[in-house]
This record gives sequence, C-alpha cells and structure tokens, in this order.
Amino acid sequence: MSKINKVVLAYSGGLDTSAIIPWLKENYDCEVVAFVADVGQGEEELIGIEEKALASGASSCYIADLKEEMVKDYIYPSLKTGAVYEGKYLLGTSMARPIIAKAQVECALEVGADALCHGCTGKGNDQVRFEGAFAALAPQLKVIAPWREWDLRSREALLDYLAERDIPCTASLEKIYSRDANAWHVSTEGGVLEDTWNAPNDLCWVWTKDPEQAPDQAETVTLKIEQGEVVAVDGEAMTPYNVLTYLNEKGIEHGVGRIDIVENRLVGMKSRGCYETPGGTIMMEALRAVEQLVLDKESFDFRQTLGLKASHLIYDGRWFTPLCQSLIAAADELAKDVSGEVVVKLYKGQATVIQKRSTNSLYSEEFATFGEDDVYDHSHAGGFIRLYSLASRIRALNSQKK
Amino acid sequence: MSKINKVVLAYSGGLDTSAIIPWLKENYDCEVVAFVADVGQGEEELIGIEEKALASGASSCYIADLKEEMVKDYIYPSLKTGAVYEGKYLLGTSMARPIIAKAQVECALEVGADALCHGCTGKGNDQVRFEGAFAALAPQLKVIAPWREWDLRSREALLDYLAERDIPCTASLEKIYSRDANAWHVSTEGGVLEDTWNAPNDLCWVWTKDPEQAPDQAETVTLKIEQGEVVAVDGEAMTPYNVLTYLNEKGIEHGVGRIDIVENRLVGMKSRGCYETPGGTIMMEALRAVEQLVLDKESFDFRQTLGLKASHLIYDGRWFTPLCQSLIAAADELAKDVSGEVVVKLYKGQATVIQKRSTNSLYSEEFATFGEDDVYDHSHAGGFIRLYSLASRIRALNSQKK
Amino acid sequence: MSKINKVVLAYSGGLDTSAIIPWLKENYDCEVVAFVADVGQGEEELIGIEEKALASGASSCYIADLKEEMVKDYIYPSLKTGAVYEGKYLLGTSMARPIIAKAQVECALEVGADALCHGCTGKGNDQVRFEGAFAALAPQLKVIAPWREWDLRSREALLDYLAERDIPCTASLEKIYSRDANAWHVSTEGGVLEDTWNAPNDLCWVWTKDPEQAPDQAETVTLKIEQGEVVAVDGEAMTPYNVLTYLNEKGIEHGVGRIDIVENRLVGMKSRGCYETPGGTIMMEALRAVEQLVLDKESFDFRQTLGLKASHLIYDGRWFTPLCQSLIAAADELAKDVSGEVVVKLYKGQATVIQKRSTNSLYSEEFATFGEDDVYDHSHAGGFIRLYSLASRIRALNSQKK
Amino acid sequence: MSKINKVVLAYSGGLDTSAIIPWLKENYDCEVVAFVADVGQGEEELIGIEEKALASGASSCYIADLKEEMVKDYIYPSLKTGAVYEGKYLLGTSMARPIIAKAQVECALEVGADALCHGCTGKGNDQVRFEGAFAALAPQLKVIAPWREWDLRSREALLDYLAERDIPCTASLEKIYSRDANAWHVSTEGGVLEDTWNAPNDLCWVWTKDPEQAPDQAETVTLKIEQGEVVAVDGEAMTPYNVLTYLNEKGIEHGVGRIDIVENRLVGMKSRGCYETPGGTIMMEALRAVEQLVLDKESFDFRQTLGLKASHLIYDGRWFTPLCQSLIAAADELAKDVSGEVVVKLYKGQATVIQKRSTNSLYSEEFATFGEDDVYDHSHAGGFIRLYSLASRIRALNSQKK
Repeated sequence: MSKINKVVLAYSGGLDTSAIIPWLKENYDCEVVAFVADVGQGEEELIGIEEKALASGASSCYIADLKEEMVKDYIYPSLKTGAVYEGKYLLGTSMARPIIAKAQVECALEVGADALCHGCTGKGNDQVRFEGAFAALAPQLKVIAPWREWDLRSREALLDYLAERDIPCTASLEKIYSRDANAWHVSTEGGVLEDTWNAPNDLCWVWTKDPEQAPDQAETVTLKIEQGEVVAVDGEAMTPYNVLTYLNEKGIEHGVGRIDIVENRLVGMKSRGCYETPGGTIMMEALRAVEQLVLDKESFDFRQTLGLKASHLIYDGRWFTPLCQSLIAAADELAKDVSGEVVVKLYKGQATVIQKRSTNSLYSEEFATFGEDDVYDHSHAGGFIRLYSLASRIRALNSQKK
Repeated sequence: MSKINKVVLAYSGGLDTSAIIPWLKENYDCEVVAFVADVGQGEEELIGIEEKALASGASSCYIADLKEEMVKDYIYPSLKTGAVYEGKYLLGTSMARPIIAKAQVECALEVGADALCHGCTGKGNDQVRFEGAFAALAPQLKVIAPWREWDLRSREALLDYLAERDIPCTASLEKIYSRDANAWHVSTEGGVLEDTWNAPNDLCWVWTKDPEQAPDQAETVTLKIEQGEVVAVDGEAMTPYNVLTYLNEKGIEHGVGRIDIVENRLVGMKSRGCYETPGGTIMMEALRAVEQLVLDKESFDFRQTLGLKASHLIYDGRWFTPLCQSLIAAADELAKDVSGEVVVKLYKGQATVIQKRSTNSLYSEEFATFGEDDVYDHSHAGGFIRLYSLASRIRALNSQKK
Repeated sequence: MSKINKVVLAYSGGLDTSAIIPWLKENYDCEVVAFVADVGQGEEELIGIEEKALASGASSCYIADLKEEMVKDYIYPSLKTGAVYEGKYLLGTSMARPIIAKAQVECALEVGADALCHGCTGKGNDQVRFEGAFAALAPQLKVIAPWREWDLRSREALLDYLAERDIPCTASLEKIYSRDANAWHVSTEGGVLEDTWNAPNDLCWVWTKDPEQAPDQAETVTLKIEQGEVVAVDGEAMTPYNVLTYLNEKGIEHGVGRIDIVENRLVGMKSRGCYETPGGTIMMEALRAVEQLVLDKESFDFRQTLGLKASHLIYDGRWFTPLCQSLIAAADELAKDVSGEVVVKLYKGQATVIQKRSTNSLYSEEFATFGEDDVYDHSHAGGFIRLYSLASRIRALNSQKK
Repeated sequence: MSKINKVVLAYSGGLDTSAIIPWLKENYDCEVVAFVADVGQGEEELIGIEEKALASGASSCYIADLKEEMVKDYIYPSLKTGAVYEGKYLLGTSMARPIIAKAQVECALEVGADALCHGCTGKGNDQVRFEGAFAALAPQLKVIAPWREWDLRSREALLDYLAERDIPCTASLEKIYSRDANAWHVSTEGGVLEDTWNAPNDLCWVWTKDPEQAPDQAETVTLKIEQGEVVAVDGEAMTPYNVLTYLNEKGIEHGVGRIDIVENRLVGMKSRGCYETPGGTIMMEALRAVEQLVLDKESFDFRQTLGLKASHLIYDGRWFTPLCQSLIAAADELAKDVSGEVVVKLYKGQATVIQKRSTNSLYSEEFATFGEDDVYDHSHAGGFIRLYSLASRIRALNSQKK
C-alpha cells in the first residue's frame, strides 16, 4: 500500500472522531484535515468545533453548510419516490450520508488529499453508505475505517487514548444511548432498547414531546405543494430547509413522527431504534394526500413500487448509482402532476390530512355527479365487468367440462 | 336470452334490495330467493330481516352466518400478505364481497336457481367483485344487476316504487351518507366528503370515538401471534372472530383505525371515503411488528411487494383467481416464522407497538453483543463493502479514464 | 348526443375502412376525412389510396409520413425499457397505434373535425389502443367504432354493402388470414392458427424466409449503439428508420424474428398469432448485449422489471399516460451508459451476438486479472459471505435451540 | 478458534480439491473425508474417484447419487418459477450447488465432522452458494475455504505442491478453459472469452454440435407436461432425470441451448461464459408454451416477476431461505393448471414450439368464434374502454381547463 500523505476525516467533534485524528497521525504518519458537515444536527454540536479539531491535531478544519442542499437535492427527491424503509423508517440517517460523503470528497480533492476517513463502526450501515459514495465519486482515494482497524473497543479505551495524549475531551465515560441527528431526524439506539420486549422510555426520545404530554388542543398546518415539493407553509413561501424547520417545530410540539422499529441492517443483522422525524412525517403525509388526488390507479401503484425499491437503495448507500438516479427520474416524472394544497391536523402524536385539493385532481364532485352521457354511463360497467372477468369465466367453464 | 325461473338475491334488508325483489318478479317473471350474509354487520340489521324479505315478495329467505369463516379464511390470509390498498385502506368492504358471493352461489346451487342478483350500483367496485366471484364459481348462472338496468335513479323513486306496491319500508327519504359495515370495518361516503377540501365531520364516523374525546389514559392489549394469525389476546385464546370483536371494542374506545382517503376505484374514477377498522388496525400493527423481528431484509421486502400486489387483487375482486391464490401461498410460506407476542398501546387514535418478542427473532441482544469470532467480526465488513461497491468503483474508474 | 359534422377516419384502404366511409355518411350524416398513416406498411398499400378514399366518398384524404418519428420516438424508447410482451412479442402492432392515433388527432384538430373513427373490431386490442390515445389527447372529440355499432358481420356483407353503393373495391371475398404490417413487424392471425395444435404453415409467414430455406452461409452485421439507440450499422451512420429497414433486409434473408405465440389480449381472451420482426429482433439482441456489459446487477434487474411493466402498458394502449412516461424516463436514465458496438451473426432463423464491447463496460480483462490490492482481494469474499449469510445463520441457530 | 478434528470436503477429483486434501491435513491437523456428489457431471469424472481421494490422503470417500433428486427437487421447482438469470442463463451451476451442499452437510453430520470445506475460488459465486447453504443447514460447522487462505496461486503451484508430497495427479499444467458440468448444463470460461470482442471458438463449446454442423433435417420431440413438470417425452413416461438425458441427446445433436453471456456475479464483478443447456432449453420452451395457453394476463405477468426474482435468489445461493421457498410455493400454485402437450422442433441451434394444447387452455377456437350472447359481446368492449380510459380522459379534460 502506498504511503498516505493527507487524509480528510468526516469529523463530528464527538469522542470517536476526536480519537481518530491522533490515531491517523500516529498510524499513517499523515496530515489530517477535519471536515465538518452542517446538516442541521444543531448549533450546539458546531460551536467551537474548529478549535476542538485543531486541539486534537487536525491541520485544518472545513465546515460546509449543506442544510439547504440536503433538503432540496436529497430529501425532496427521496420523498417523491415515497421511500420508507421496511414500512416505517423515513431514512433520516441514510439520506444524510451521501451528501456528507460528497462534500467530503470535494474537500479532499480541493486540499489534495489522498485518503478519506470516517468514524463509523464495523457493525453498522453507515460505513457502507460512506464507502459506497466514496467508491462512486473518488475511487482513486484510499479509505480508512479506524473502527475496523484499531483495537480500541470501548468509550473507556478512547478516553484513555485521548488522555494519554493530553487531548482535551468533554465526553463522558457513560453513554447509554447512541444518537444521530440532522435537520430531518434524530435516532436513538442502545440502552433499554436492546431488549425488544422493553418499551421505550423517556430517554429514548430526544426532540418530540411525549404525545401524552402534547397539547390537548389540536393544531393545523397548511402545505402548498408543487410538483412533489413543499413550496409554502401556512401561506408563506419558504426555502426547503425553512419548510423543514418550520414543520419540525410544529411536529415536535405535538409529538409527531416517533417510530420504534426493529430493522434489517444491510450488514445482515437486525437493530432496534427509536427515530423521530416530526416535520418529515408531516411532509410525507401531505405529499401522499396530493398523490391520492392526482395519480391514477396504476401510477399510484408504481409510485409505491418505486418507494419500496428506493427505500432499499437509499438505506443501502446506493445513492450515487445509475439505478437510484433512474428511480428518481421515474419519480420526478410522476411528480409533475403532484401539486395542490393540504391541511394537516396535529394532535397527540398524529399528523392527519383533513383537507386536500389540487387543480390536477382526478376526483371532483363534478365528475362524480356527471351526467350519464358525458364521461361515464352506468351501463358501461356491464361490458367492463364481462371482459374483466372473461378469463375467470372461461377457466371455470373449462373445469366444469372435466 | 333464456327464461329465468329462480334468482338468488344478495339481500341486505335495505331500500335498494327491498325494491329489487318486486322488480325482479315483474321484469323477469321469476321466483326470488333472498340470501342474507351475516358478516358481522350488526344485529340491528338482521332483526326481522326474513319477515321483511317475505313481505317484499321473496319466496324464501336464507341467512348464512359467515363471521368466523370471513375472519379465518379471508381476513387472516389477506393480513399475511400485508395487503393495504393505496397505502391506507384495509380492504374492509373488498374482503367481504367474495365470501358473500361464494355463499350466495352455494345457496343458488342448493335451491336450483338459474340466476344471481346483487344490488350494487353501476359506478362502484362491488359489482365487479360480486360478478368476478360469480364468473369464477358459477359461470353457468345468469347475473342480474338491476342498477345497470332499471331507470329508478333516486331514493325517492325507490320509495315510490315500493309504495305503489304496498310494500312496507322504513327507509327514510333523506340519506346523506352511504355506508357499508361488517365485523372488520365500516365505511362512510357522500355528504360533506364529496368535496375533498371539506374535513370529515362527526357524521362521517360511525363506530370509533373521536380521538379528541377518547380516554386520556392509554391502555395496552397483548396479542399472541402464531404463524401470522392472532390466536390469543390479553392472555386468552380466542376464535378469529372473537379476536376481532374484542379488539374492535378496545379500538373503538380509543378512536383507533380511522382513515380518510381518496382512492382509485377499479372502474376508473376516484372516490372519497372515511373508513373505520379499529380492531383490524391493531392486528395489522401487531403482525407487522412480529415480521420486523423474524423476516430477513429480502423476505420483508418481498412481503411488502406481495402486500402491494394482493391489495389490488383483493380490491379488484380477484379473490377467486389462480394469481390471488398464488400470492396467498407465498405469504403463508413466509408467515411460518411469524410467531410471537406484541404489546400494543392504544391512545387517542393511535395503536403503537411498544413491546414485541419472538422465539424466531433474528434480533437478540445476544447476537448484537456476540463475541467477534462467533457470528460477526467487524473486519468482515471491509470485505463486504469492497465487493458490495465494486461495480460503482469500476464504473467510476472507467469514467475517469475518459 | 350532439350532431357530428366532420369525422376523421383512420383509413387503410382496405375493405373495412372503405365500407366505413359511406356508412358514416349515411348513419351520422357527416363529412368524412380519410387519414392515412404511413408507418412503413409498404408502398403497395399506399399507391392510389387517395383516389380510393375519395371514390368511397371521403371529402379529402391526408397522408402523414410517420416512419422516422415512429422509430425514433416510439420504438427506440420502448427498446430502452426492454419491453417484450409475455416473453416473446416485440409489440409491433401495439407501438404503431399511439403514433397513428396522435397524428389522426392532430389532423382532426387541424380540419376542425368533431369526431374520430377507427376500423378496429370489437374483440381486439387495437380499439383500446386507439381510444386510449384519443381519450388522452382529445377527450372532447366523439369516437365512433363502427364494428361495435353496425350489423355488418362478414366480408361478404361488407362487399355487398359497397356493391349496393357502386363503390369500387378490389378486395376478395375469401381472406383466410388477417394481417397487420408496419416497418417494425408484420402479424398473421386466423386460418390454421386458430387451432393451437396446428403448426404454422407457409401462409402464416409473410416477410421472412423459412429458416430451412435461408442461406447456408451465416452473415454478420455490426451495430453501433449510443445511449441505447442504434446510430450506425456496418460502419455507416443511418437515421433510425434506415437502420430498421437495413436490418429488416438482413433479417428477412436469414429467417430471423419469427414467433408463434398465444397471447392474452387486454380484452380478456387469448389469441394466437405469427409475428415477424426481423430487424427488431436484431436490434433487441444487440441492445441487450451492450446492457450485459454496462449495467450492474441491480440495474440490469430493474431494467428487466421496467421492460415487463412497459410491455403491458404499451400492449394495453397506455402510451400517453404519466406512468408510461415515467417508465420511459427511468429507462432513458439507465440507457445513458448503454453505448458500444455489437456484432450479430445471422443464421437460419437466429440472430446471435458473438462480439461486443463498450468503453463503459464494467467487464474487462484488466479488472478480471487485477492485482489483488487494487480493486478486489480474494480475502474480501470471506467477510462478504459472512455478512451476506448472517440472517440465514442466525435463523438456523435459532431453530437449533428449539 | 477451536481445533478441527474431521472435515468433509466437496471433492471433485480435479487438481484443486486433490491438493486441498493434504493441505487441510497439514494446516488443520485433521482427518479429511472426501464427499463426491454425482449430479450427472459424467461417468468419466467418477471412475476411480474413490481411489484418487484415498491416494490424496482422504480417510474415506462417499459418493452420493443426486441425479434424480436434483432434477425433481431443484430443477423442476426452478423451472416452474421461470427463473432465467439476466435474460439468458438457465442457472445450471447455481442450481447444482445447494443440492451438493445439502448432501455434503448430511454426510458431515453422519460421520461426525466438525467442519466443511469446498474448493471454490475467492472471486466466484460458488463460494457464496456453498457457504450460504452451510449457514442455513449447519451453522454450527466450521467452514474452510482454502482458496481464500492459502498462497497457492496457479496450477503450477498446485502441481508442485502435489509432486512434493508424491501424490499422483494426471492434471495437465496447461488448462485454458475452466469448466463446470452437471446433467443440466456445462459452462466454459476463460481463454479467448476473456475479451468480449472475441467471438467464441470451437473450444468454447463442449457438448453441443455447432448449429452450422447440425443436421439439415429438422426433428421434433413431443413433451407431456403435468402441473409444470415434464412427465413423458415422445409418448414414453420417464423419470425427471431420464427426461433430461433424453432431451439432452436431442438438443446436443441439433446444437440447441448455447448461450454466450457477460453476467453480473454476486461478488460485484462481471464474467463472461459460454453455457450449454440443450435439454433444459427444450424443457423451458415447452413449459412456457403451456403457460401461454393456461395462464391469464395477470398470472402470466406474475410468473414472469417470480422468475426474475427467483433467478437472483438461485444465482445468489439463497435456495435454503424462507424467501426462496415462498417464491417456489407461489410458482407451484400457478403451475397447478400448467398441463398439456407440446411439440418442439429442433433445427440448427433452435428449439421452437410449433404445436401446443391443454385441457386447461383459456384459448380455444370455440371461444374465439362464440355466439355473441355467450361469453363475449362486441358491444361490451365499448363500456370496457370507456372505464379503462376514464382516468386519462379526466386528466386530459383537466388540462384543457387550464
């Protein structure tokens, strides 16, 4: 293996990536550039992060604001496909990985690095997502995955490792729950969740109010959707990221968007997590409601098929593949009609569409009560049914002849 | 067309089928046998129904108790496929049609009838479902669909028609909402729902408490599932139908199982309805939760594909086809592992699985914390990822050569 | 029904549409415009066709040359999806219908007609294809389908009908086989084919040489493909239509592209036909061969899924629907990599790809023999397999514990 | 890792597995049992194989005759699903792996072995297939894959290794093409095939006559099919294996069943091979032909979907998974109607169905020419089309209003 001179690390400021910086320098004898992606994980995670990176030994630290791009170019296309993993998971962590990886690669190319590094563990999906993106975007760069290489196996070991090197770290020894957050969602794993027979407790939820503590008074929000994208909320045009934060605030207050799931990881094992996607849940419900109005039977079915397929590709770290782009192209085409307005009611954990309309609606009172010779005649149905059940009839007649 | 001597009518006791009896006799000069299917639509609909049928002119009236059979042989198989129409509808009306039609055909064969009749309108799905079943089960019998033949076009006309013949009828002139009920669900269409921009009002919901009026105290139910079927609830073994009524009671109290949907009818138009499936929603959630534990990634995906496909077949009246039976065989096979226990929390309109376990679970703390040389080694992931992203890597290297 | 003033008829010059002209005038008291689509059905069918139309009573006759457009905008997109109906049929008749219908509608709008008419029978697919296109493109125009209206039921009746009106007609009384031709294919139905236990005889094949009579010497053609479209053959750049006619000539000589199929019509019955698609078969083989080189496993699978889905939409007359456009968008995206060169050997009924290459190829000797630390290491496979079979392993361990 | 005492090796008698025996003994200090699966690879491969195994140092050698079981329990179920990998490959090697692995596991359990070993290389699919089966059937047994462990990297190294140990071996130094054979197929890889721009030469084909050298006289075979399985050929009832060998003989003579494919391996790379499946190709064509007669439109489509899905599972070594069993259950259900007789014409590389019939046929002259009031009325089509295109019509009317 050729010598590595400069590596760009996806740096979060947490314990793991803090330890990775000195580890890389010692084990690869290379310069380490810290790359921080702002995907809306929260201001508190970003404050002082550059200082922290430098204190850990990074030669420099780049912070990229990816918030608008993430919603516009990753979340919206995913939403149009209808991707929901295993019936529940809105893919919050999965969708953030490719955008971080892409920006990290761009950083690496800019600073002339010859390697990329991430802090994902060896049992999870994220390593596949990062490295899948790296393979598609910069196959010439080496990839270092410390968790698959080093023999540090616990928080204690990491803290000791940093302490031995006098690198300041505020991380605590005890950390029961493992979390990941961005503007779209926050996930919680570990602790009581490790036994599926345990119900989640209060520590398993980070953002959203417990539905039982949410306001007794329901609230509504109105979303304006154009070609499958939310362009305004409650009468106000907003950027994609602002739509999301606005809806997050509403959803959080009403306990919307919690799921508790056991899911199949790509790497063959199952894991259990509690995920919160407050604004996303509202958007998803709204989008599906407009689709109810505008998509015909076969198109709706295909959109569901696309969503199922896309959910795997996105979950599995396949964003930058021809197949994922093909699904997105198909979904974009179907979304051309998906424009309208939706009123969503928020109440004690639920987001329920109560009103919806669209100028592309295939439903309308007018058609339902149409005069008979216009678009529909009761008598047409007789011919339809006759042909529709013809194969059944012939098959049954056959079997009677035997 | 050859002369019809005896027709078996799917009789509900309502205004439409009450008028159909004399209409058949007058227009086809034939004997009319009333066939009543008890699918759990409610005692009040069955009281005095035989007298009513005879008073309308039926020569006899047969009542078939199909309640257990419906849950066991139609609902459970459907649940195993995971069929949900257009992402929301639990197929309550759709699943009831084939079982009614099958029993009606059996009645017709027994009484030596040469025709079958139903009271479905010419704009709906149910005519297709009835006649699809008839075509598969008794293609030799004639089918009469009065709504596609007669020129009675309003409740008023029907009432007049009965009055002219001195046939007693308690139906009211005004009936804003059209409803269909069985043990699994009740549907409501019409009235304010005809404008999708109207929110449903209290008249749009029949069984379930308004979530906002539901108890402030959450409640749990525990379901025991064996091979994809609920066999006991709250520690008590129950028949399928009893499971359903027990869960209905719980769900109704907590406002569980309401949906408000615009759906694509098979006959090309859209319609909007409010559907309530309280017990069914709880069962569905519980079943999916056990699947989360026991189905691997590809099996879970296929179960979802089956559900999507089955939802159309069931909705479209294709129950008695080789294809539907093929899907059910596939789902039965996957359901062999789907056994376990689930605790569902009911609160203000929501049914949320909070605990789940299965001896077939592919998840377990034990595996998650396994020693490295047993079933999983962090280092395995490196090889996995390398191969998993190999095509991406080669493609990217190709494009760099250009 | 409002009065019809002017109708545009899809006119072929054959017996049926010749009789339709006077029938329309007599029964609808309207002007009839004959519209002729040149889709490559052959010069002999077009010679003197305007005179014939006028002699039958048409007020005018428009001939539209759709040959290049058909290949470029209908056949090429279909080929990219890989659509093949029921495993065999290359959709020759199906693809021609929407382009004819679209041009017919354009003609109707131009001449200010208020109705459209076609000569398709009431048992076939083509009526659905024409009327499906009409519904999507000009729902305001009335549609007249004489075969579903009139009581002319035989060739004899049609000939008599014309004779009574002194309209000259060269059609013969006896016509055993029914045929449809365009540049892409010719179909033959009827006669001996009506019994599936009869083998096709010489009358069942129109264009292609019997493979047993084809040259004993094989021949090759070389196709150059760019982004899923054939752009040159045997070293010469050609327009899409010229590609097709060039390959047709080769294929015909070697008996390539015959199929004998029993297929499911959309209208519920099965029919049997012998179809010949000589050039198309060669193109299809060539395209699939380049896909073998450039599409990864999951993309190839999705392309196959798209082809299956598209085959139904195209067969069923759904070209002008959002769903069909969505599938085409997906296929176009995948086709971006589908460029290369292919040598096809033609021999005694077979078109076999014997050589293929592409600069986008994911296969190459270079990769296959790569040094181990470059893109692939034997040892990677161990980790891959371990994770790939992890769910199986856990499931088996579970069942051993019982 | 705990000590291994006894290992059962899937032994072929070839160079690789001959070297593996001493290598296992030296590196694992264990007893080696040679397990030979007779899957119809040919008598010459089995003659003297026990002696050979013992001479190489095996403690014993078991030979299992799996020929009938392979056709009956692996090939027939696969055929019913219609599995064809990437549009061409009839899965000859893929289907043989699970049956060999299963018998090998049974042998290991019987002789009390604690490990399993195979001679598959680290770049291929077969390692995944073997180890996938091992994981599902005997997860408690260790797996040894020498090709991923040892540093022997060439035929020369293997020959030297054997020579050093005085183990007799008749393998030649030069072996350009790599082959795998069983009753169903023979595959050839390597040599000129490594460049996709090379056409296959005579060395690339093992069994079948070159179509250009095949008889000038066509020949026919008649297959009798019951519920998706061939039960008799040319009037004679035969066991599944005998059906296959009979058809192989015919197919070989006429050059039937050759394919030349670049395929996506499961392990991320592409490979190119020439495969011959003479009898299998005939069976596949015959089966599909009966399906044309008996499956309705939606069932045929689903069978195609099943085939696509099953092709990946079988190729990927997923035979012993709940998902694969679910697909097989679905296919079995559809195959219940697939009975009939088919005449296949063999000529110069082609197997063409020319006659077919079935008592379950949904096609029949009788229905096609039915009186109008029996099963089909031309006028029914009008209503069908109206409803079928209703969504298109409404959408178009919508867009005209804008």
